Amino acid sequence: MTSRRPLREVMARGNPALAFGAHDALTAVLGERAGFDAIWASGFGISTTMALPDLNLLGMSDHLVSVRRMAAACGLPVLADVDCGFGGPLNLAYAVMMYEQAGVGGICVEDQQFPKTNSFVSGRQQLVDADEFAAKVEAGKRAQQGRDFMLVARTEAMICGRGVDEALRRAHRYVDAGADAVLVHSSSDDPREVIEFLRRWGGKTPAVVIPTTYVTLSAQRAGAEGAAMVVYANQALRAAVRAISEVATAVRADRSTRGVESRIATLDAVFEITDLHGWLDLER
Amino acid sequence: MTSRRPLREVMARGNPALAFGAHDALTAVLGERAGFDAIWASGFGISTTMALPDLNLLGMSDHLVSVRRMAAACGLPVLADVDCGFGGPLNLAYAVMMYEQAGVGGICVEDQQFPKTNSFVSGRQQLVDADEFAAKVEAGKRAQQGRDFMLVARTEAMICGRGVDEALRRAHRYVDAGADAVLVHSSSDDPREVIEFLRRWGGKTPAVVIPTTYVTLSAQRAGAEGAAMVVYANQALRAAVRAISEVATAVRADRSTRGVESRIATLDAVFEITDLHGWLDLER
Amino acid sequence: MTSRRPLREVMARGNPALAFGAHDALTAVLGERAGFDAIWASGFGISTTMALPDLNLLGMSDHLVSVRRMAAACGLPVLADVDCGFGGPLNLAYAVMMYEQAGVGGICVEDQQFPKTNSFVSGRQQLVDADEFAAKVEAGKRAQQGRDFMLVARTEAMICGRGVDEALRRAHRYVDAGADAVLVHSSSDDPREVIEFLRRWGGKTPAVVIPTTYVTLSAQRAGAEGAAMVVYANQALRAAVRAISEVATAVRADRSTRGVESRIATLDAVFEITDLHGWLDLER
Amino acid sequence: MTSRRPLREVMARGNPALAFGAHDALTAVLGERAGFDAIWASGFGISTTMALPDLNLLGMSDHLVSVRRMAAACGLPVLADVDCGFGGPLNLAYAVMMYEQAGVGGICVEDQQFPKTNSFVSGRQQLVDADEFAAKVEAGKRAQQGRDFMLVARTEAMICGRGVDEALRRAHRYVDAGADAVLVHSSSDDPREVIEFLRRWGGKTPAVVIPTTYVTLSAQRAGAEGAAMVVYANQALRAAVRAISEVATAVRADRSTRGVESRIATLDAVFEITDLHGWLDLER
Repeated sequence: MTSRRPLREVMARGNPALAFGAHDALTAVLGERAGFDAIWASGFGISTTMALPDLNLLGMSDHLVSVRRMAAACGLPVLADVDCGFGGPLNLAYAVMMYEQAGVGGICVEDQQFPKTNSFVSGRQQLVDADEFAAKVEAGKRAQQGRDFMLVARTEAMICGRGVDEALRRAHRYVDAGADAVLVHSSSDDPREVIEFLRRWGGKTPAVVIPTTYVTLSAQRAGAEGAAMVVYANQALRAAVRAISEVATAVRADRSTRGVESRIATLDAVFEITDLHGWLDLER
Repeated sequence: MTSRRPLREVMARGNPALAFGAHDALTAVLGERAGFDAIWASGFGISTTMALPDLNLLGMSDHLVSVRRMAAACGLPVLADVDCGFGGPLNLAYAVMMYEQAGVGGICVEDQQFPKTNSFVSGRQQLVDADEFAAKVEAGKRAQQGRDFMLVARTEAMICGRGVDEALRRAHRYVDAGADAVLVHSSSDDPREVIEFLRRWGGKTPAVVIPTTYVTLSAQRAGAEGAAMVVYANQALRAAVRAISEVATAVRADRSTRGVESRIATLDAVFEITDLHGWLDLER
Repeated sequence: MTSRRPLREVMARGNPALAFGAHDALTAVLGERAGFDAIWASGFGISTTMALPDLNLLGMSDHLVSVRRMAAACGLPVLADVDCGFGGPLNLAYAVMMYEQAGVGGICVEDQQFPKTNSFVSGRQQLVDADEFAAKVEAGKRAQQGRDFMLVARTEAMICGRGVDEALRRAHRYVDAGADAVLVHSSSDDPREVIEFLRRWGGKTPAVVIPTTYVTLSAQRAGAEGAAMVVYANQALRAAVRAISEVATAVRADRSTRGVESRIATLDAVFEITDLHGWLDLER
Repeated sequence: MTSRRPLREVMARGNPALAFGAHDALTAVLGERAGFDAIWASGFGISTTMALPDLNLLGMSDHLVSVRRMAAACGLPVLADVDCGFGGPLNLAYAVMMYEQAGVGGICVEDQQFPKTNSFVSGRQQLVDADEFAAKVEAGKRAQQGRDFMLVARTEAMICGRGVDEALRRAHRYVDAGADAVLVHSSSDDPREVIEFLRRWGGKTPAVVIPTTYVTLSAQRAGAEGAAMVVYANQALRAAVRAISEVATAVRADRSTRGVESRIATLDAVFEITDLHGWLDLER
């Protein structure tokens, strides 16, 4: 853990850095093995594994338990998606203290009103006033102890149909308040507004994007337009949902696992991922 | 939750009942949707999602947090795999109190020495003395409040190479001590010893089997030989590991999700699994 | 646990019922032994034991862990002080599900804006709009499964200097939305506004009061004026703070415990409170 | 937190260092304010606040949640009493990883068989074989990442009536296996065997004592005999139990708090302990 690279450095050298969205520590390990540069500890993913919708029903401690396990299990820096920061400025300040202590590289906090609604559910998201959010950022940064931890400010302006201008205005406001990077989110299938944002942002701080819906934007292109990090936030979760559903259906129908054995990992492969033999070596 | 069927009843009518091994609440929901009769809250699965080997590193509270979420998320009875019961007789008694209060249908406790080693790692498992384990069962049953909760005693005798006779001797001893059902485990590819156990057991109590390695034994056949429940304990986990690894590798290589979109669940499908719109209706 | 009396019944027969504010399960047991009728699981108390100010820094899970332990440890019904309900209407709905499942008798939710400020810190509390709070109550009640669970609506109108009329208007609004009881809070040294509230309320539902500052109002008098329950919310916590501070100071100064031995409980007394010998009996 | 002194340094300069036993973060803060040098995160204390007997019913996570809060709340190094290390060698290794990451100064692990019985309950404690315990110490030390963390080996040899010779033999064995300090425990009223141990130990490593029953041994004297640290392990808990009981009884009898107001801390004093105004300043 001590040798983990700072998130800041990963973003600086990534061109762009690629982050893998994890919903549990196992997924974080699999992302590390596949060669990603960082882990995105997904709020949506964590709540979904608990069979809860992405509506801020979970509190900070529920989220932090999962995030700690990710940080313990893999050597990549973790960027924790803390949604709206669990309440007001003091809740965010408390989150900064706790996540920094947990060895997380940074947190990403967004300007939806608390409690949030997942960005891909249309029509319910409400922005907080930009100054109010800036005050949250300021409180968060005041609570930070070390130098490496990053507070990434995410604007949902484009999610809320407010356009690139408003997204930029807010991003500037948040960086002026102390944010270390910005994340601009979009639920459009078309990457144009994200590309416009990146060009006009011009590298004032690192910029992060999440191409969930605008799948035509490759990471290479995003990097060329100015993104420091590209997050693949929920594909692991969605792969798991599909695969588990299919296996459950097949086993139930066949009353046997014979038909699925070739499509699932072996027990030995699973043991290896949890470093079972490395653990047993500690005993000798 | 109040209308959940008792596990005892599910075992009695299953012919045999089919249980789906879940490593999180999401998986429990997917098992329910696929038509399974019960959920097996897998100790191996839960520790693996935390990227920890199946060596009893997690304590009861870690396990119970996951199990509670499974019980809250689905309407099926949950049988919680509590490994060795977290220590001695009083630890098992405490587990009975806590899992019963949590609305779980029953727990399954095994006769390996604490801390255990996963049954499929060869050569490390040690059995506790049968009388010592019987004392554990007795302490567990003394702690029970209601009538429905089941304590399933699992013997690892065959895992430890001690054969069917010893497995039967232990199963009888544990049922005499108060166990409500027995689970006989085997890591053989050949189902013969399990079948022999089932025939000689003769239905004294419900018997449960886990055909992880002896995949040629169908549930139908197991039921015909006398099994009351067949557990598919870890296929969901292994499906998730395979699918997440593949998606991670592909996205990393392509620097894009375009190649994987057709192989993963849609966002809307995920929202539906967490009943997002049902939750939003509570607000109106 | 199954024989625990419903909170509703305790309030109905209390004349008035006396609730003891607990900050941990140990305190709940001590309150039960002293003859109280119910336990108030204090948000202020729980956050203080964690050395955190009473500003909603803790989330629902942090609080629920403590509350579950109180319910497990004592036979009295527990009324859990959930502050503002951890966010919006869906957060309160989720709390109702989780606290009801935990075997708690009811929750008390207040009409301060989230995140709240402790009611005795002057000048920061903001009320939410009454209709908005009523919507929260409605969402909470829609989430309830059984009949016994109580949702107690607490108004901070008098804490915010808005007077008895506004407190009554709000209390009626909340009961019309489904609240099972009302709690009127005051930080005055003078009980007159509380007494006026009770008289004008007239028993439409049970009414609860917390005489922290207006210490001249006895429970007998409060009952005579119409209170169904009187909560002594934080005296246990404050007793512990005083006693621990004094012992710490004395032991540090003396470099010995000889001077304090007569002022602290014996080890055997502590063992007896945790029923150590009852537990050991489970093993025989 | 970054400026916290290493526990090793505190022990080296203490002459002897004085540690205050805390059962929650609030108590840790009160110990710091009274001038203690370190905090002893008491296993007995933590389980008692949960109304559970000191029999290893709690797992590592339950304990660690409390210990993390202590470390977050106070600037003193924390020595965490982890009883038997939660199981075997790998459980202790896992504990070292987790407590070290949590910012704790060290852990103290004892040579009772798991699950343990509180050292002051006569007649149930069983020692593990010394070599077996040494293997545990070795596994624990292999898991350590940094240099400062201390593993303190505690022998219950004298608790089990095995005398000073056996205690010394074991202490040497454990230090040879890598323990950074030893703790010798005694339930005698007479300090002679502890003093003999300290003299014969001769400062090979720091030695720690807990004068719960042999109250005639002052810290000064213990230091003069060679103790590096003296732990006052449970007096805070016992002070709280006494004070809470008395207040509960009085309030119940009087149906009023008037008689106890002078014996309990004021609300403002409690707010100050949780640094409420410091927190509010983060928002400005």
